[in-house]
Formats: sequence, structure tokens, C-alpha cells
Amino acid sequence: MHIVLDPEEIAYVKSKLQSKTVKKKSLLSEAGDICRNIYFVNKGCLRVFNTDKDGEEHNILFCPENWWAADLASFSGQTPAFYSIDTLEDTEVLYFSYSALEQLYIKIPKFERFFRILTQNGFSLYQRRMTANLSRSAEERYERFQKQYPKLEQRIAQKHIASFLGITPVFLSMIRKKNL
Amino acid sequence: MHIVLDPEEIAYVKSKLQSKTVKKKSLLSEAGDICRNIYFVNKGCLRVFNTDKDGEEHNILFCPENWWAADLASFSGQTPAFYSIDTLEDTEVLYFSYSALEQLYIKIPKFERFFRILTQNGFSLYQRRMTANLSRSAEERYERFQKQYPKLEQRIAQKHIASFLGITPVFLSMIRKKNL
Repeated sequence: MHIVLDPEEIAYVKSKLQSKTVKKKSLLSEAGDICRNIYFVNKGCLRVFNTDKDGEEHNILFCPENWWAADLASFSGQTPAFYSIDTLEDTEVLYFSYSALEQLYIKIPKFERFFRILTQNGFSLYQRRMTANLSRSAEERYERFQKQYPKLEQRIAQKHIASFLGITPVFLSMIRKKNL
Repeated sequence: MHIVLDPEEIAYVKSKLQSKTVKKKSLLSEAGDICRNIYFVNKGCLRVFNTDKDGEEHNILFCPENWWAADLASFSGQTPAFYSIDTLEDTEVLYFSYSALEQLYIKIPKFERFFRILTQNGFSLYQRRMTANLSRSAEERYERFQKQYPKLEQRIAQKHIASFLGITPVFLSMIRKKNL
């Protein structure tokens, strides 16, 4: 954690935080709609993806336990989302609505700091992934995925990992066999 | 701007802000060193890039007027940088050192908000670019670059744009000819 909260602040945060449990393959937020919540994964796994004009899905992020998920541009501007979010497993999320989070920023300004640092980390993550995509082979990107998401590989479908890496499932399967 | 400052706050910000003018092709921050400053481009253009193990440079970001530049992971953690930053033109920058910005956060907490929103925008930008790289053709990515950086194309070398798009200069030249 990047900030320290006193008991009263913790109680306030809890009063703003909602939770729900959703079945596998449920949509939490859909491209075209406004992304109304920012989700924290307590158990399970979310997927953030875009569907292109040919109907093909491109996974941009997996969010297993302790990750945050939102279409951040949509959430922070309350504008139509580019990304959809669904569940890859039965999933338990905690979440803030847009207005709850804005109230939290006003009531406990150090949450600005918390989410600034969280966003910075996400920013750096994407920056590094962009560079990896520009400069590294699919094999190296696969190794990077394994490091970034320990043990996630056993939990989600191969096609989703292939889409995340920007390669075909057949090619991913070849890489995996070589690594056995 | 996402925050409103009173005259006293503006004076404080100005007291923390430094400026300098650097010649074209100067390094402002080098991979392996700690990125000590976060730069705002007043005039000119910066480039954020990584040099891979084969000595090849990969451009991750161009920062013309009104853009901010830093290796954010290095700057915020004060750890060795992955990215280098240099100038593509004679460039005039305003900048905060790490300690100046931390003091600013303490003195004027709404700067946390400003930089949170700034980082969110950067985060969304990379997220969209990642998706474009996964799902779009080089031609479409080139059009996206032109939209994102109006008129920058005339100011910087073709090889830098090709590296940003993850294609060869020869391929970029073919795309450009087709578009004439």
C-alpha cells in the first residue's frame, strides 16, 4: 500500500466499496457503454479486451487476484468504453463506482496519491509491453507473460493467451512444445 | 488543466520548476541511470527510447510541445531507468526534479490529482496503442500516428517514425508513397 489510513478512514472506504460475485464468462462492462466501476479482483480472473471490426477479440489485460480493472479512459471521463471486461472464471470483485471514487478523493485526498501511483505502475507496465512488442520475439514475450502472471497459464484458455501475445494459438502451441 | 491554482500556489510551483534549453541530439536521461526529472516540452521535441541487446533503438514516445516526458517507473521509484530520453530538435524544457515534485505534492495536494489524471491519460494512450499493435495493420497505425502527432512527421527523421511503428524505414516509405 502507498498510503496509511486511520480507522475512521477505513470505515469510510468500506462504506463506498461494493462487492459482487459473478459467474464465469459474464460481462462486467461492455465496449460502447460507459465503464461505471473500477474493479478490484478478490478471487478469480477478469479479462479486458476489444473486439475489432472483423469480430476478432484482442486481449489487452488479464486481472487475476489483487489486480484492478477498468476501461480507464471511459471510467475517468464517463464516456463510451473502447474495451469490454468479462470473467474468465467465477469471480469475486470489490469495486468503486465513479461517483463513490470521486467522493473518496474529496473526503480522503490521499486516495489521489494511491490511484496516481497505481496508475503510474499500470502506465509503466504498458510502456514496457509496448517496447517488448516492438523489440522482442514471440518466445521472449511468452516468457515475459509467464513471469508477469505466475501460474495464470494453467487457469485460462490458450486462445486468450495467444490473443494477449498477438500470435495465433497454433504458434503459441509450437512455442510451448519447444519449451517442454 | 484539471486543477485551479491561486496566485500563491502558482508562485510556489514556479519556484519548484526549473528550465533549460538543450541542443538537438542531446541526452537528457540515459537508460541505466536514474531518471531524475520529469520534463514538460515548451518548444522542440523529445524522444523516449530503449536500446535493445543488439544495439537497436526502439522509440516508445515522441514528446513535442505540451507533452510530458520521463521514464516514469525510474522517476517515481528513483531506480535505474529502462528508457533513455534525447532531443530530436533544439528543445526548451521545464522540469521538476523528483524531490521538487514530492514537495509540491505535500504543499499542494491537488497536484496529486493533476498528475493522476495526466498519468491516466498516458495509461489510456498506451493501452490503445497496444491494442492497435495487436489488431491493426501498419497502414492503420501510421494513420493513427499522423492523427496523434499532427505535423510532427515533417519535423523528425523517417527512421524514428518507423521505429515507433515497429516497421522498417523501407516499409514506411512504401506506405507513404501509396498515400500520396
